Parts: sequence; C-alpha cells; structure tokens
Amino acid sequence: MSFSRVAISSFTERPSLAALLVMSTVEETGGDAGPLSNDVLLVFYPFPERKEWIEHITNRFKGLRVRWVSAINPDHSVVKATDVATELWDGVTILSTFMPPPAELIPNVRFVQVTSAGVDRWPSHPTYQNENVRFSTSNGIHAPQIAEWVIGAWLSHQHNFLHYASNMKTGTWESPFAARIQDSTGRRIGILGYGAIGRQCARLASVLGMEVYAYTRGERTTPESRKDDSYCVPGTGDPDGILPAKWFHGTSRENVNEFLAQGLDLLVISLPLTPETRHIISGEQFEILSKRKTFVVNIARGGHINQEALQKALETGQIRGAALDVTDPEPLPNDHPLWRAPNLLITPHVSWKTDHLWDRLLDILELNLEKLATGKPLINVVNRKLHY
Amino acid sequence: MSFSRVAISSFTERPSLAALLVMSTVEETGGDAGPLSNDVLLVFYPFPERKEWIEHITNRFKGLRVRWVSAINPDHSVVKATDVATELWDGVTILSTFMPPPAELIPNVRFVQVTSAGVDRWPSHPTYQNENVRFSTSNGIHAPQIAEWVIGAWLSHQHNFLHYASNMKTGTWESPFAARIQDSTGRRIGILGYGAIGRQCARLASVLGMEVYAYTRGERTTPESRKDDSYCVPGTGDPDGILPAKWFHGTSRENVNEFLAQGLDLLVISLPLTPETRHIISGEQFEILSKRKTFVVNIARGGHINQEALQKALETGQIRGAALDVTDPEPLPNDHPLWRAPNLLITPHVSWKTDHLWDRLLDILELNLEKLATGKPLINVVNRKLHY
Repeated sequence: MSFSRVAISSFTERPSLAALLVMSTVEETGGDAGPLSNDVLLVFYPFPERKEWIEHITNRFKGLRVRWVSAINPDHSVVKATDVATELWDGVTILSTFMPPPAELIPNVRFVQVTSAGVDRWPSHPTYQNENVRFSTSNGIHAPQIAEWVIGAWLSHQHNFLHYASNMKTGTWESPFAARIQDSTGRRIGILGYGAIGRQCARLASVLGMEVYAYTRGERTTPESRKDDSYCVPGTGDPDGILPAKWFHGTSRENVNEFLAQGLDLLVISLPLTPETRHIISGEQFEILSKRKTFVVNIARGGHINQEALQKALETGQIRGAALDVTDPEPLPNDHPLWRAPNLLITPHVSWKTDHLWDRLLDILELNLEKLATGKPLINVVNRKLHY
Repeated sequence: MSFSRVAISSFTERPSLAALLVMSTVEETGGDAGPLSNDVLLVFYPFPERKEWIEHITNRFKGLRVRWVSAINPDHSVVKATDVATELWDGVTILSTFMPPPAELIPNVRFVQVTSAGVDRWPSHPTYQNENVRFSTSNGIHAPQIAEWVIGAWLSHQHNFLHYASNMKTGTWESPFAARIQDSTGRRIGILGYGAIGRQCARLASVLGMEVYAYTRGERTTPESRKDDSYCVPGTGDPDGILPAKWFHGTSRENVNEFLAQGLDLLVISLPLTPETRHIISGEQFEILSKRKTFVVNIARGGHINQEALQKALETGQIRGAALDVTDPEPLPNDHPLWRAPNLLITPHVSWKTDHLWDRLLDILELNLEKLATGKPLINVVNRKLHY
C-alpha cells in the first residue's frame, strides 16, 4: 500500500488568505479491493488532517480512497466548498462535511455524514432532496460538552459568577449576606427535546438533585419507546430513558405550553429546528414561564426563540435569566439590543466545541463506513420527513 | 404550653442601625419536664427566626427553653455577640452559632453546634479549651451548594464564560473557531480533603466523565475506612467512598506533592485549615501543578494558599486559572493585586450559601438535640486534637 501526499493551494475570495490556505489530501492508491473500493470519501472538516485516522481507515476498508480538506482558514474563517480545488470534489461518493457544498460539486455522492446534530442547513438542497442519497447526522457526539455548557451556564447564573466577576474589576468584596443563592437540590429541569444532548443534561441535573421532566415530539409510554439509539459517548447520557420523573409530548403549542407550566426552574431547548419548532418559545410562552421565573437555555438553534419576546422577558423580569449559545441571525450583529439585555449570557455558537469532538466524529463516521461496507443499517439516519 | 414572645432592641457600635436592630426570642415556659428541661438553647444565626421550627422543637423536647437571635443586621453586617442584650445569654447551656461569643457570656454552656464545617475560629477560645464542653460542626450541610460552586467555576473556566461575557459588552461575536475548549470527559480531578464537600465534588465530576483522585490525612485502605459518617444530604456525595479511582494520604509536604504530581486537570482544596495545612499550596506546589496547568479551586480557607505564589502562578501561566471563594484576609482589601490577576474568579465567601442551608442546619441541630436527650453519641463531633 502506498500513500501519495498532495498539497494543493486553493484561491479564496480573500486574496490575502490565499497564500496561507494549503489543503492536503491523502489518497489510497492500489491495494486489495474491498466493499468500498469504488468509493471516494471526502472529509471536509474545520480541523487539520488526522494522518493516523486516514491510515487506519484505508487499512480497514481496502481500496477506499480518502481525501481530507481542512475547512478552516488560519484566521478562523470558514473555507467555502467553492474555494476548494475542483479536482478534490471529482468522483466523491461519500462526504462528511460541516457546510453543504453546491450540489453540482457532488453529483455522485451516495452518503453524507453531516457534522451537526441536525440537518437544518440541508432541506432545500438538491442533494438532500434526492432520496437515493442517504444522510446521517452526528447526533450524540456533542452531548457531553453541550450538557456541560448548559449546566455550567445554569450554575454560573445561580451562583452569581458574572456579578462577582464584575465586582472584581473594582476590587469590591460584597457582603456574603447581600446575595440570595439557591442550590439545585429539589429544583426542576424541563428538557424540550429529549435526545442525546437533553439526556446528558438530565444526567448531570439529576446528580445535582434536580427533578427531570422530559418533552418529546411523539409519545413515549413504553420502556422501549423511551430508549435512544443514537450515538452515545460511553458512560454518558440516559440511553434507556430512565431519568425523567415525568414525560410530556406533542406537536401543538398547547402541548408545549402545558409542559412549560410545570414549575420549571430551568428550561433547556434541545430540539431540532424545523418549521414546526420555529419560535416555539415566544411571548405567550414567556408569560407561562414567568410564574417560576424559569432560567431559559438555548443550545439548539436561534430560530427556536422569538428574540424580541426574549428581550422583553429579560428586561421586565419575566424570567430570572437566560443563556444562549445560538442566536438569530448568527453572528448576532454588533449593534443588536440583545447584547445589552440583563441576566443574559451569549456565547458565539461554541457549546459543541471540544478537543474530543473530532475523535467522536471520526468514530461515528467509521461506524457508518462499516455499515456501508457490510450493508447494515446506518446509525443516526436522517428522517426525511422530520429533517433530523 | 405557652409561648412568650419578646422583642428586644439592642444597641450596636453603629447607632444608625440601632433602631433597625430588633431581636426576638421565644422561650418555652412551663410544660412537662423532659431530658433537656434544664437546658437553654440559644440559636444565634444570620437568619430570621423560624417560628415553626421553635414550636416543633419545644413540642418535641419538653421543658427546653429556646431563644433565637438573628445575627445579621438589615445592612447585611454581622451582629456581634456583645451587641446582644446580656439577658439573652443568661443561663445558655446549648449554643448554635456562626461566630464565637466571648467565653464570659457562656459560662454554663455544655454543647456548641457551630454553623461551619470546621472550627478554625475556635481553637484559642477558652470555651473550646474546656474539654467538658462538646462541639459539633455542621459538616455536610454545605456539600451540595459548595460542590455546585466548584463544578460551576470549573465549567465556567473551561467553556470561557467570563471571556464571552466580556465580549458581550462590545457586541463582539468571536469566531467559534478562535477558542480551544476541552470538555471534562477523561480529565482528572484531585480532591485534597475527601470529606462531605469533596465527596459531592467527586459525584458531580464523575458524571462529567472525570477520573477522581482523593487525598486524605490518614490512610484509607479498607472499605470501612473509606466511609464518611458525617451528615449527608440524602442522594448526594459519596458516603461509602466508592468513587475515587486512586487514594492518596499523608501529613507531609512530600505526600501532598506526590498527589499534586498526578496530572490533575482540576484541584479542589476542601481541607480544614489547621497549622499543618496552612499554605499547603505554595510556590513549590504550583511548580508541580504547572506540568498539567491545573485549574485550582479553593472553597476551604484563604490560608491554605500562599497568595503571593498564586498570583505569580496566574501571571506566569503556571496554572490555567483558579477560582477562590476564600482569601487571606477577608474581605480582600480593595487595592489587593489579586483582584487583577488573570484567569481568576474571586467570590466573597458565598459558596456555602443556599436557601436550603438553614433547613439543613436546623436538621443537624435537631439530630444532636435528640442525641443529647437520649445520651447517644453526637454526630459531627469535633476532634479536639485535629480541630475539625
């Protein structure tokens, strides 16, 4: 087996970056013919090439050609698919990517492994509309870090960390008796969307002594229906669905409103974004949440929340606070009033980040290559009706 | 049974507050004689009187006289024992207090239930030096909220919350690819002092996927020796000592240094402060911690850390950051350079705070009243040699 290592320079719209943008690929050439020997895999991640993984994969799937293109520029801007040399797209049959490339670049693709938990960037894409192309999400790889973000934001709010950090600037030691602080024992978390991320939130919250209420689209009455078969980092989450004290479900606003009226101290939005879930939390919902002054956390998509209603809820004290890793639009414009809303933490869509992410992503991609090679059902297959 | 409710005004050194400072007491008078009928309990907490608790206790322990004095002024300053009308101290045999009163006020006291996890305010106190007076700590009541503070501070650091909060002021949406973020899976937490607080830290950390290393003063080789019999909030902590992957012990700096050299990502200081543990983390220890750039958390006492060495460790990047709920001295002076050290969170000794605290404190006091009444061993008894 021999590797040919090719460094290809590509030109972007920003000429100043062109000199910096070097993409390398590795192509398996020759070797035995395996079940994926007619396939070309393009890995298009915002992450440098992992040589040892490519070597492992090309050893494991004989004849599979693997190309790796880094989708991130040195200045942290995203590389567009059209910035990539066209020969790297030629003949691609298996694609794992962060952003969708134009359909004309991938006429031969048969399987797309997306790097996000949902496919909300894809529904109008011609490749996605072609039902012969199979799509899998990376649902599950984000659960540990996003649940850390959720619980960290909750604890940071409940223990006034941002307030005390602000006091540090003036060297102010406030009397410990000035603040009221509530620990989490006996509090209630409501998880809107009980998938991989929601389940790890539940696991952490339950160890804090919180009661877990879960909301799902479909009814989950049997133990079997409460299971989650998506990718799960070992030792995390609630794959069997045993943590919630109560389950709620439905597709209507009335169903959601009933869930929100359960005296939730903490609400986590961990749903896919679909036309059905757009603005699922708006003025009416904040009014319901005002009874308990729920802390609202959104780590899903900015479109789940009506931001004007959120701004009002924060400014009028309907809710005790909120934490958003996602906004609408992104980036949130510099002069957007939401930046200045009280009791709010905004982070720039980073809750998915972790040094471990790419190990998990490659793990799930390898699992699906194995399914493709053996003809077994893929994991995390996208439901083309629900788009997740 | 009849209650006499007495409101007594007391004068403080700050005359402007005198008019506001009203203390009320309830004394059980008459009724049947129980085993505590010769006792006078004074509850001296920075918290308003709990009438329903007093009624419950005087019903349960017939003849016990109960007085309750709020130890906090309306401006959140602490009421001194000498500010309290002397008749409220007359004949006190059982005292539960936040600060030690002068010994001459409590000549008849036989049992002191302190509200802190240690007795570092007491060792030189004549009442404490009288071995006929029994002392119990409130060890255990602080574990859930302090462990939340510890893990919240860790997650807040690891997920750059303070950095993003600062970006909000200028409406800056930083590229998600600018930051490196590590989640906690596979990281290691070292807990210096594996008591009630350390055990709940271990419980939370283990659910984050962290490996737990524990350090105790004495060796813990048997399952029995690893147990902790102090007060434990149900469903929390690690009372059986089953979470640590490795145990370390000793009383020398060499023992501590060996523990610190274990590649710890997070170090939690949860020891009592004794002459032996003063400055247990100093320049030599930060040098050891620099190999892993350990995040250092102190929720015990400011005296555990040599603050000059900490300042240097933060400024030179020996450690990735630190979070202190305690400093030396307290309050930390307004112009102290530590306020401006990088990657540091300081909170003003609030990690013990929670609305649930007083329920737990009264729960433990009642448990010990029951032990006094029945002659059984008290819980959380202070070891007069170790002072905790």
